[in-house]
Amino acid sequence: MRYRASVNELSQSRVQQLLHHADSLRLGIEILENGCAVIDAGIKVLGGLEAGRIITEICMGGMGTAAIMQNPYTQHWPLSIHVHASNPVLACLGSQYAGWSLSHGKYYALGSGPARALATKVKEGVVEPVEALYKELDYRDSHDRTALVIENDAIPPIEIVDKVAAACGVKPENLTIIVTPTSSLAGGVQVVGRVLEVAMHKAHALHFPLEDIVDGSGSAPICPPHPNFVKAMGRTNDAILFAGQVHLFVKGSDDAAAQLANALPSSTSKDYGKPFADIFKAYDYDFFKIDAMLFSPASVIVTAVESGKSFRAGKLDNALLDQSFGL
Amino acid sequence: MRYRASVNELSQSRVQQLLHHADSLRLGIEILENGCAVIDAGIKVLGGLEAGRIITEICMGGMGTAAIMQNPYTQHWPLSIHVHASNPVLACLGSQYAGWSLSHGKYYALGSGPARALATKVKEGVVEPVEALYKELDYRDSHDRTALVIENDAIPPIEIVDKVAAACGVKPENLTIIVTPTSSLAGGVQVVGRVLEVAMHKAHALHFPLEDIVDGSGSAPICPPHPNFVKAMGRTNDAILFAGQVHLFVKGSDDAAAQLANALPSSTSKDYGKPFADIFKAYDYDFFKIDAMLFSPASVIVTAVESGKSFRAGKLDNALLDQSFGL
Amino acid sequence: MRYRASVNELSQSRVQQLLHHADSLRLGIEILENGCAVIDAGIKVLGGLEAGRIITEICMGGMGTAAIMQNPYTQHWPLSIHVHASNPVLACLGSQYAGWSLSHGKYYALGSGPARALATKVKEGVVEPVEALYKELDYRDSHDRTALVIENDAIPPIEIVDKVAAACGVKPENLTIIVTPTSSLAGGVQVVGRVLEVAMHKAHALHFPLEDIVDGSGSAPICPPHPNFVKAMGRTNDAILFAGQVHLFVKGSDDAAAQLANALPSSTSKDYGKPFADIFKAYDYDFFKIDAMLFSPASVIVTAVESGKSFRAGKLDNALLDQSFGL
Repeated sequence: MRYRASVNELSQSRVQQLLHHADSLRLGIEILENGCAVIDAGIKVLGGLEAGRIITEICMGGMGTAAIMQNPYTQHWPLSIHVHASNPVLACLGSQYAGWSLSHGKYYALGSGPARALATKVKEGVVEPVEALYKELDYRDSHDRTALVIENDAIPPIEIVDKVAAACGVKPENLTIIVTPTSSLAGGVQVVGRVLEVAMHKAHALHFPLEDIVDGSGSAPICPPHPNFVKAMGRTNDAILFAGQVHLFVKGSDDAAAQLANALPSSTSKDYGKPFADIFKAYDYDFFKIDAMLFSPASVIVTAVESGKSFRAGKLDNALLDQSFGL
Repeated sequence: MRYRASVNELSQSRVQQLLHHADSLRLGIEILENGCAVIDAGIKVLGGLEAGRIITEICMGGMGTAAIMQNPYTQHWPLSIHVHASNPVLACLGSQYAGWSLSHGKYYALGSGPARALATKVKEGVVEPVEALYKELDYRDSHDRTALVIENDAIPPIEIVDKVAAACGVKPENLTIIVTPTSSLAGGVQVVGRVLEVAMHKAHALHFPLEDIVDGSGSAPICPPHPNFVKAMGRTNDAILFAGQVHLFVKGSDDAAAQLANALPSSTSKDYGKPFADIFKAYDYDFFKIDAMLFSPASVIVTAVESGKSFRAGKLDNALLDQSFGL
Repeated sequence: MRYRASVNELSQSRVQQLLHHADSLRLGIEILENGCAVIDAGIKVLGGLEAGRIITEICMGGMGTAAIMQNPYTQHWPLSIHVHASNPVLACLGSQYAGWSLSHGKYYALGSGPARALATKVKEGVVEPVEALYKELDYRDSHDRTALVIENDAIPPIEIVDKVAAACGVKPENLTIIVTPTSSLAGGVQVVGRVLEVAMHKAHALHFPLEDIVDGSGSAPICPPHPNFVKAMGRTNDAILFAGQVHLFVKGSDDAAAQLANALPSSTSKDYGKPFADIFKAYDYDFFKIDAMLFSPASVIVTAVESGKSFRAGKLDNALLDQSFGL
């Protein structure tokens, strides 16, 4: 599974789009002292749905398409995002997944997007990817410009920015950091736009062979933002857990495809059944107590391309969606 | 509410798209003696849906997205337009709204699109916007190229064109005038594509604080055109009145958001209940006798971003839509 | 019906997109000894949905739009393609239709896409289009670069490539040949993306005056691919026959529009009622025994723009779609 496609090269035109159209997209731009451009997508500025859509495509490393439309597949929430990626493993796990832990002092954030595919560290004298996941993906990118997306309410301290630039091997002025608060419109869109990524991540957790995933498409309703962080995060998750739907195309046996379909939906989790914010609270806000199998779309079709058979499992849950989104 | 984004600069690439692809979009181009390019989108030529879609984006000053798709949310009319704009007040009221009255001799038309944001007049020695609305918006654009959209069955006389260029402070050769007859396909699309603008206009009429409108999305079925002007206009209105749906995101109190949601839908108007052409006839074709509150989408969701609560009101009316569209 | 728009010029940017983004689109590129670039969209490589979408737009000569989204208009197959073209006769019959028979030795294929509009032959000393259809369309293109799409499991022999380049009057290095196996994802998308073309072809077979067709839109569910050629082809057809829907806009009389609407749907065919693969088998795999009137969308709206009346016929058939797609 070695690809020559560069998630950083492919996404860079959209990064420039954010920078050049910051005013019309209601984004703020701050050039740090080290030259790095930080895009504020909802802290001091309003941001918006369209910024969130473009950020979703940046997160997918320019290898996926995100569209916003009114789509009547849930009962009460027509505003939806649709994504598809012809290499969902690379677009989603190789770029979109929020897998890079970054901290300095009290600031803690997870980084997502194409910068992850450049980031290396030296361990016992050997240069290796910051995230072990890249060894499994057998993918390393090389490019002189990059972007990192951070879901947070604050601009990261310069120490984190310097660290990211150094790990990626780019000059700080060639790094763009995009910050999207969970409670913002852009933040909500770019999380809900992870509906396909969540399926990739769970497929990986289920030990489904990633190289067998050929193509994928997903959609989910865009959640109304909430000013409370936990409720905002809850809604972004619930959009996917209660009303996300994906269609995956996989190689391999029918058994493997059927098992994947049956195991993927959120309703297979023991924690399924109430809004995410309530689950989180019930576990005393300890993220790691939550069943990892919960994080997945509501409804899944897996087509086994070698037999032509399709397997489906799960279903949308309008009642729980309404409860979460606050009908 | 001062924006540096230029609706004229942002929309100009799409104006050039119409000019360069006039043949494939079935548009006619006439260069007037003063150098102004007039695009005929359905008078002597056929025009079409795609031209209407691009004109919709020009009308929104390049700050909104318009997509045409088959979307099954009404019972019988799948062909639909979806728009969204992260600054709906500026995109829709600051550009898309048909607010510039133009007349010369027997020719009368309302101008819409980005040129409005450039247009000034001198009143008692003071330069001010042609439309008082711009004072409320606190927005003035500055650009050396511009476009105006006119919904009419005839090319405007050169005197109007000269007047528009002069008011906008551009050379006539840097002005593009796009003419879309109401009965044409492009004309129908670009009016139905005003579903979000109609909501902005009514929010303004209801004295909702415009600076509190953060983002917006809307969709409506594309109406079949009608050769009769009144019926054609009626259908474009009915597409929005009976089947337009918008989702707005607003700042401010829940009360204000709830009031906006409750007041917005077309069904709140005393004139709601029959096709627009019939209402118009019943008022002896006097536009100003019609309840101004009628002009609004059928179904509305307003999300108050400061509380996370959503308020909804109105509903689609398939029976009236079928009656208007002629099932 | 003479158009100056060049389907080859208009589609060339998308051809370059395939060539430049071959890695991220999972395409293979082979430069033949004569300099022609052959794009493998699913033989030795995976290809994918997005490649199929772009190929659909190339097939339509750059004069139509294709979008992939999850759209809930069938019961079980949300993944769908939407197309629209403001000159559907030129986009679909003048470019997208697979009308160019190509053979050499055992290799036989039908060519589709913009190259067809360039291809000429000399008959009794006179240069004429390879396909007689172009005389009816009264359209000839002229351009120095071109692309041909071939639905096949194998790269064509060099003799066919040379023949295509010569017939089109371009150097082989300026010809791109795109090969999409029926069983591939890209192949399936680009066939289902013919939902509007199939309607144009049947309108032509029904002797509806093509110059009266003003605009058109269509959508259909994207079928799961099948490794067996007959079943794969069957599903691509069934996507259109059981769940394709089109909306056409036509000039002319209401009678003509009503007749077109009534005659268009697939269900008017005597062979309608079971999956295409079963019909094909029942006719001993003799394509020419199948009723030509079968090949058409399930559900049709025809709007007569001169009267404003719309005529509809046919309907989606979820049960047959599920039978074909393998629920």
